[in-house]
Amino acid sequence: MDISRRSVFFVSDSTAITAETLGHCLLAQFDHIKYDPITFPFIDTVEKAEKLVHQINIEAANTGLAPIVFSTLVSKEIRDKVKKSRGIFLDLFDTYLETLERELSVPSSHIVGRYHSLSDVNSYDVRIDAINYALGADDGTGTKEYDRADVILIGVSRAGKTPTCLYLGMQFGIYAANYPLTEEDLLGRRGEMPAVLLPFRPKLYGLTINPERLQKIRSQRRPNSRYASFSQCRLEVEAAEAFFEKWSIPYLNVTTMSVEEIASKVLHETNLGRRVW
Amino acid sequence: MDISRRSVFFVSDSTAITAETLGHCLLAQFDHIKYDPITFPFIDTVEKAEKLVHQINIEAANTGLAPIVFSTLVSKEIRDKVKKSRGIFLDLFDTYLETLERELSVPSSHIVGRYHSLSDVNSYDVRIDAINYALGADDGTGTKEYDRADVILIGVSRAGKTPTCLYLGMQFGIYAANYPLTEEDLLGRRGEMPAVLLPFRPKLYGLTINPERLQKIRSQRRPNSRYASFSQCRLEVEAAEAFFEKWSIPYLNVTTMSVEEIASKVLHETNLGRRVW
Repeated sequence: MDISRRSVFFVSDSTAITAETLGHCLLAQFDHIKYDPITFPFIDTVEKAEKLVHQINIEAANTGLAPIVFSTLVSKEIRDKVKKSRGIFLDLFDTYLETLERELSVPSSHIVGRYHSLSDVNSYDVRIDAINYALGADDGTGTKEYDRADVILIGVSRAGKTPTCLYLGMQFGIYAANYPLTEEDLLGRRGEMPAVLLPFRPKLYGLTINPERLQKIRSQRRPNSRYASFSQCRLEVEAAEAFFEKWSIPYLNVTTMSVEEIASKVLHETNLGRRVW
Repeated sequence: MDISRRSVFFVSDSTAITAETLGHCLLAQFDHIKYDPITFPFIDTVEKAEKLVHQINIEAANTGLAPIVFSTLVSKEIRDKVKKSRGIFLDLFDTYLETLERELSVPSSHIVGRYHSLSDVNSYDVRIDAINYALGADDGTGTKEYDRADVILIGVSRAGKTPTCLYLGMQFGIYAANYPLTEEDLLGRRGEMPAVLLPFRPKLYGLTINPERLQKIRSQRRPNSRYASFSQCRLEVEAAEAFFEKWSIPYLNVTTMSVEEIASKVLHETNLGRRVW
């Protein structure tokens, strides 16, 4: 029995993305344990639930420890099956549905796979459109589409603009373009505003990054190049930050942030309303 | 007092993405109520918590109904503050942390903003690299990079390949390329395997879609074109499905699926191990 490891099951009648999200959020609080995660999406019949229970019980027997089961199973019948396994059963619906039913004074619909499913075609279309928008207005291309943009991220090359734009589209339905501040923009024109950006000043939002981290990222792409040198990274970052200050453009240092954090901060600080939930 | 509406707060010391995810997953089970959602990310001080409590209480007074508060607040001190509001307080840590601490026999670290933060630079790099990979190997470009692909999605134009590839990279760290089956591929060459795909047959995975839905999607892009006509859509879809069958390529009909669902199915059915959690 190795108490420094633990088997973790993520279980759902749908994608299991929510179960994974809540599980990881909780497990991130326990440092000293190594997890052996396994995901079981689409558990939508009693037969599948029974097979799963069997696997959980085998794992419990093999490790001598109860596996932790994070689940989002809408069907009470399926939930009750999985609950009888030898795992520690933490289910979102099991925990909260009764409280919500009581408070909202209505029964829940108990419809399997509803969240993350295409119940709302409109919000699906918005997200796809927003992703396509981000792809079309990436890296300074598609500048003629800037009137459609909710926000235009600007910053030096490899500051994280592209993934942030894609995430803003995918998660929030936000139309995000991006424009790379080139050496020519920053140093050649001495901080003049590029003409294509001028009409869109209120939509601009800056991303910056520490030169050390930028050097690492650029070195992966073009090792030993001038582009990836520390002096070049520092020069560009300093000029970009001066540019943000000069034009009073709000900006964010993303050095220690994940894509989700950057996107959330941008959404929060620009007061943009998200189009999809 | 309008009981058909309800104010909902999503609260977190970090991005609030997990709080939103779990809240929406639960609220999707209640059909007849309209939600007025508002997100409060980065509630990481007692002062911010006090302001939030004030806002929740004002909302409760204005609507005559207790707002529902979905939260992921790691700090017990901040949690206890928000708990005292007039909202219905449903907090992930409040609910599960004790159970987990007992079961894992270790105290949790109570570190704010840990999940969705850049605690694991390596997994950050993998995700960014996988997103860049998807961008570089999109729409049949970058075929010389196919040896790096975990999976190559194939299907007719607008079947959902690009957003799925991006999601696979962003969420799972999977390197996903895509190749569009053109009319020339499908009809010109009578179902012969395109030469660029031939060495990578085991990596191929097909997406298909009902012609009616495809027509709608294509019409948004190029209205009244031959490309968007029903007859053309049907012709291509039938040929694509025949192609998948002929070459024994696993495939999925994505007509009623969200991007998350498509990505999860692909991951599940190809037995690909995700690189990040």
